[in-house]
Amino acid sequence: MTYRPARRLADIEPFHVVELLTRARQLESGGHDIIHMEVGEPDFPTPEPIARAAIRAIEGGKTLYTQALGLPELRAAISTFYRERYGVAVPAGRIAITNGASGALNLAFAALANPGDEWLLADPGYPCNRHILRTYEGCPVSIPVGPESNFQPTPAMLRQYWTDKTAGLLVASPANPTGTLLTLAQIEALAATCRELQGHFIVDEIYHGLTYAPKEAPEGNETDAPTACAAGNDIWVINSFSKYFQMTGWRLGWMVIPETYVRDVEKLAQNLTLCPSTPAQHAALAAFEPETIAILEERRAEFRRRRDFLAPALEALGLRVTARPEGAFYLYCDCSALSDDSYTLARDLLEKAGVAATPGLDFGSNAPEKHIRFAYTTQIPRLAEAVERLGRYFGR
Amino acid sequence: MTYRPARRLADIEPFHVVELLTRARQLESGGHDIIHMEVGEPDFPTPEPIARAAIRAIEGGKTLYTQALGLPELRAAISTFYRERYGVAVPAGRIAITNGASGALNLAFAALANPGDEWLLADPGYPCNRHILRTYEGCPVSIPVGPESNFQPTPAMLRQYWTDKTAGLLVASPANPTGTLLTLAQIEALAATCRELQGHFIVDEIYHGLTYAPKEAPEGNETDAPTACAAGNDIWVINSFSKYFQMTGWRLGWMVIPETYVRDVEKLAQNLTLCPSTPAQHAALAAFEPETIAILEERRAEFRRRRDFLAPALEALGLRVTARPEGAFYLYCDCSALSDDSYTLARDLLEKAGVAATPGLDFGSNAPEKHIRFAYTTQIPRLAEAVERLGRYFGR
Repeated sequence: MTYRPARRLADIEPFHVVELLTRARQLESGGHDIIHMEVGEPDFPTPEPIARAAIRAIEGGKTLYTQALGLPELRAAISTFYRERYGVAVPAGRIAITNGASGALNLAFAALANPGDEWLLADPGYPCNRHILRTYEGCPVSIPVGPESNFQPTPAMLRQYWTDKTAGLLVASPANPTGTLLTLAQIEALAATCRELQGHFIVDEIYHGLTYAPKEAPEGNETDAPTACAAGNDIWVINSFSKYFQMTGWRLGWMVIPETYVRDVEKLAQNLTLCPSTPAQHAALAAFEPETIAILEERRAEFRRRRDFLAPALEALGLRVTARPEGAFYLYCDCSALSDDSYTLARDLLEKAGVAATPGLDFGSNAPEKHIRFAYTTQIPRLAEAVERLGRYFGR
Repeated sequence: MTYRPARRLADIEPFHVVELLTRARQLESGGHDIIHMEVGEPDFPTPEPIARAAIRAIEGGKTLYTQALGLPELRAAISTFYRERYGVAVPAGRIAITNGASGALNLAFAALANPGDEWLLADPGYPCNRHILRTYEGCPVSIPVGPESNFQPTPAMLRQYWTDKTAGLLVASPANPTGTLLTLAQIEALAATCRELQGHFIVDEIYHGLTYAPKEAPEGNETDAPTACAAGNDIWVINSFSKYFQMTGWRLGWMVIPETYVRDVEKLAQNLTLCPSTPAQHAALAAFEPETIAILEERRAEFRRRRDFLAPALEALGLRVTARPEGAFYLYCDCSALSDDSYTLARDLLEKAGVAATPGLDFGSNAPEKHIRFAYTTQIPRLAEAVERLGRYFGR
């Protein structure tokens, strides 16, 4: 048989960082110590109350299929979470439990994207988003964003890039790779523009909960980013149990769906996935307990301390943090003063400094060669060691 | 905002049986006893060694992301399973771990189906398959199958339905809703025809392991259906931990991929799902242990006893089992001697006999009104009670 993959495969890229990771593993098995700053995964284990809830469910035989949109009690718990934590009313009936935020975005684009439709996405941005869209035959259109707009699209950019073929906009707050946030006013302005232009609006909030006050603010002063759920019930909002709740491998997320589309998403979920993981859903029921939240808030404070340590340290080395990193666990650095190709730099840092970071290439085509992402998903002593190694590498 | 779902939604149907289920729950909460013969889910809990392995993994903090195609040790275990149980060599590198068999089929069609491509599927068949294909903009084309070919497509049918637009064929063995099997010779003949016509060939083997000797054969004489992996390494083979391994809610399956497409599927998995559930993968490592297999084989014998009880009992009522049900846990009955509309019949059986079954409507457009599916995922005393109730309803 001739090799004949679907045409979309030509537009879907692998994670470029995986190549570096493979090399990192080689180096490690050869006895080298590598500091991993490329990983988009919290280094904390799943909080114990969540793990215990999973074990109870498994012991109790709660491992059968659930309804396609998830356990009613988990949907209700998320609805309560929106009310109590954000003061926003989101009915449980509009909440779908999904196979991670990835599963949510798959369902959203399956429900909304027609072949040939253009969707606007910020560049740099999380690469999977445009690839998921392409899989459902939509066309991702990049809006190049930079420090001028804190790496977020603006209504003016929307109008500039909007065409007859444009079907909608996807933004992320906190954003990956930059960690920048949108204010509620900014979300409302984007939503209003989408409404005026008759486009859909999807907001990726998977790093919600991981937002930090400015370095100057006293500790314990963290506030949550505003949720797009507060900006209109016609907005699609995606969230995850992976990041703030530290349940990465469980593959669980959720999506807030505009009322009129709930039936469509349910139909798709019935057919495409049957249901999200049942043990994971039972585990997640413990995610909103005060005991769990207390653990998560301690860890959030630790992420903030890491950011506050790492950002100035990288700046001092000439790795300019041009975004305002107020969330997630990444610093997106302009490395153009030190290298004219971030991919080569990333490879060099790995080989010569034992530090793994993610080159801009993985986040789009907006000056990727000038940027490199450092994740602070590792403890401060290791971050300090990394900074020292980078200093030696750059001759500082 | 105007309601504007993607056009594909018009072609994707919900599970019609869900309406009946909602009514069943109403009746049950009103104190009525309903015998559930509509459920496509084993009534056995996940075997204890599998559950224990999951708990060990969770306690050990093994809940982080895995590689996109799954844990290397689980891929290796499946490779060993193919060698030891089927005598077929399938390298671990060709095996992808997926979010259930649904996740496997999503990846297969994402990798293979171009917009407008036609794919041939047997009708009656599992409805999600054509809806997943439609989601990736392929066009499902039904091959009506009946008792003449034991509800399986033949090479002659392939030639009859093949057009310039046809990209491939999907078959299932054991099939749902009929439980019929393909012999290795039949699989080879279909594969050869696909090769000649330059089409892809996908075989759904999610009910593998649940196959039964004829009623006359002594117990304990069950043999496995042949796997399509033995018929060529250009065949895509999908399997699941849900049915034989009784891990439904864990959402874990796998796919054997032709070598040249492994990289494509990996790229897609990286972008669309990140990885399958980590606790489920660790759980599944215990699925191939002799202790687990012993439990599963006992349960398989029980399924066979149920089939051997139920099939003649339904026949005696005039519900003709025109397929040879050698696998899965379904009997697909021709009810045309008793009713001219199986959907009305299913509703009536629920209301008046307290028996829930799935009307043909859920399996395609090939005389659905004449057919109804009974699942034997409930114990023999309950099946006997159902038969009695049906007898009273039909006045036998």
